[in-house]
Amino acid sequence: MQNDIPGIDEIRSAHERIKNSIHRTPVLTSESINRILGANIFFKCDNFQKVGAFKFRGALNAVCQLPKNKMEKGVATHSSGNYAAALTHAAAMKGIKAYMVMPETAPEIKKKAVKGYGAEITFCKPSLKAREETLNKVVADTGASFIHPFNNFDVIAGQGTAALEFLEDYPDLEIILTPLGGGGLLSGTAIFCKESNYQTKVIGVEPKGADDAYRSLKAGKILPSINPQTIADGLLTSLGDRTFKVIRKYVDDIILVSEEAIVEAMKMVWERMKIIIEPSSAVPLAGILEHKKMFINKKTGIIVTGGNVDINKLPF
Amino acid sequence: MQNDIPGIDEIRSAHERIKNSIHRTPVLTSESINRILGANIFFKCDNFQKVGAFKFRGALNAVCQLPKNKMEKGVATHSSGNYAAALTHAAAMKGIKAYMVMPETAPEIKKKAVKGYGAEITFCKPSLKAREETLNKVVADTGASFIHPFNNFDVIAGQGTAALEFLEDYPDLEIILTPLGGGGLLSGTAIFCKESNYQTKVIGVEPKGADDAYRSLKAGKILPSINPQTIADGLLTSLGDRTFKVIRKYVDDIILVSEEAIVEAMKMVWERMKIIIEPSSAVPLAGILEHKKMFINKKTGIIVTGGNVDINKLPF
Repeated sequence: MQNDIPGIDEIRSAHERIKNSIHRTPVLTSESINRILGANIFFKCDNFQKVGAFKFRGALNAVCQLPKNKMEKGVATHSSGNYAAALTHAAAMKGIKAYMVMPETAPEIKKKAVKGYGAEITFCKPSLKAREETLNKVVADTGASFIHPFNNFDVIAGQGTAALEFLEDYPDLEIILTPLGGGGLLSGTAIFCKESNYQTKVIGVEPKGADDAYRSLKAGKILPSINPQTIADGLLTSLGDRTFKVIRKYVDDIILVSEEAIVEAMKMVWERMKIIIEPSSAVPLAGILEHKKMFINKKTGIIVTGGNVDINKLPF
Repeated sequence: MQNDIPGIDEIRSAHERIKNSIHRTPVLTSESINRILGANIFFKCDNFQKVGAFKFRGALNAVCQLPKNKMEKGVATHSSGNYAAALTHAAAMKGIKAYMVMPETAPEIKKKAVKGYGAEITFCKPSLKAREETLNKVVADTGASFIHPFNNFDVIAGQGTAALEFLEDYPDLEIILTPLGGGGLLSGTAIFCKESNYQTKVIGVEPKGADDAYRSLKAGKILPSINPQTIADGLLTSLGDRTFKVIRKYVDDIILVSEEAIVEAMKMVWERMKIIIEPSSAVPLAGILEHKKMFINKKTGIIVTGGNVDINKLPF
């Protein structure tokens, strides 16, 4: 039986599988941000990834791994965010259908984006129960494969490819920071760093208003968020059992950040780096802003997770 | 006597001179923009250059070329835009003073930025006459060297280094587009392309509301803009005699674009590429929007010139 979490070999295979279909995203630096923070930060810009988010890596890897008889029936998931766009676009590249379950309250701009990528959308009431029931029905009706946004072997392996590229380009990074929501990216990153020969520490950064992973790690068991509140709308999700397992085993630390620091970090990146990042992507830099001492003169990598934000509704 | 315009050897030397002090900026592509336009576009992102603009290349090259006795007295220019920041930062890197003459009406955000880079600013009335008189006085008082923003041998050579890097990375570009204001970037680009073995066409793109280069080329003599009007505030300047000479000799074409196309192109880049560009940088893509047929299936390079824009005052 297959292990329930991937190892470094699966991340390497995932990269071979998807590398010609994804962008090898550039790494940028900013003299002025480094000067302000006394740090030495490298930004791996997956906001430039296809669909504007790292999630395309995991989604594409998972779609590619479906056996032929499943592949032809398409894929399904519930998501209102980047993962919906990522899975839909990955499905389109393989010429198969993507069935998305979205809450009817999702912002118009996201509905439009996911539709634009070619998804068949089923709307549901905005509750976890309605979402799961609707998804079950869609899967029963279509035979599509449900691909979980993060608690999935192939998705985690795909997300680990960002760290693989990052360390190929900058092998002497001392720390890598990722935002922490469901934990797919943090898990893939930690597996790659800890099962390779790199000496890189891996730290997850979580908004105080959605700190389920921080609490879960302390408690030694999964304590999901109840009514999480943060501007970092990609990080409202709680951990899954697979990502919890990896994070417990491999992640060096989890740090928390305030909403003010997230907005400050986001504005700093827009103004000084000239790149568009969504609030969730600003969370690691917020971590450096609020925990400066940990990062003084350290070569620190940040995986910039996405750039999908309504440019007419900025928080600053 | 030195020629009044540089050749390809000077561009190569400029690159050797400055390459360790500038960012080698990445080249990005966008599947969705290519699909919309039926084009194959490569964006050389000098909005990620130091001070957020390609102008740093030329400014640094010019500062480095000053003889020691001139160097120690500093540099001066009049500019309210990216060139002021670029020359000031280049001077700071060499430990010398930068004297900037700015109109008192310049936006606070620009005054602050230039001050932040360490310039000594003298304000003047917002007229060409006041600007020149004030600059002459500053130069007389300080002994600083006036370094013209574009009509300068070493500045043009420095600007040509963007095309050098671009073609090193993408040698099969069929066309390179640049925005066209004073003509420094277009000149450096054209010299590099035409004196090298690349088969790349060079086209300048100019706003209809500031079309002095288009008219001057047609007339065969410099016809400066009178009261030019465009959102692309970096392109209000008219050609100089040196840039006119290069452009006449080497540039394949100049095309004009509307204000509407500039705003549409700017928004398209922000939303689809997740990078922050200023209006002037959107002018080449506006050229493709409004002259689609010229670019169908052509490998077209765009030099993205800068990303300095007040993110709280967007034109969309």
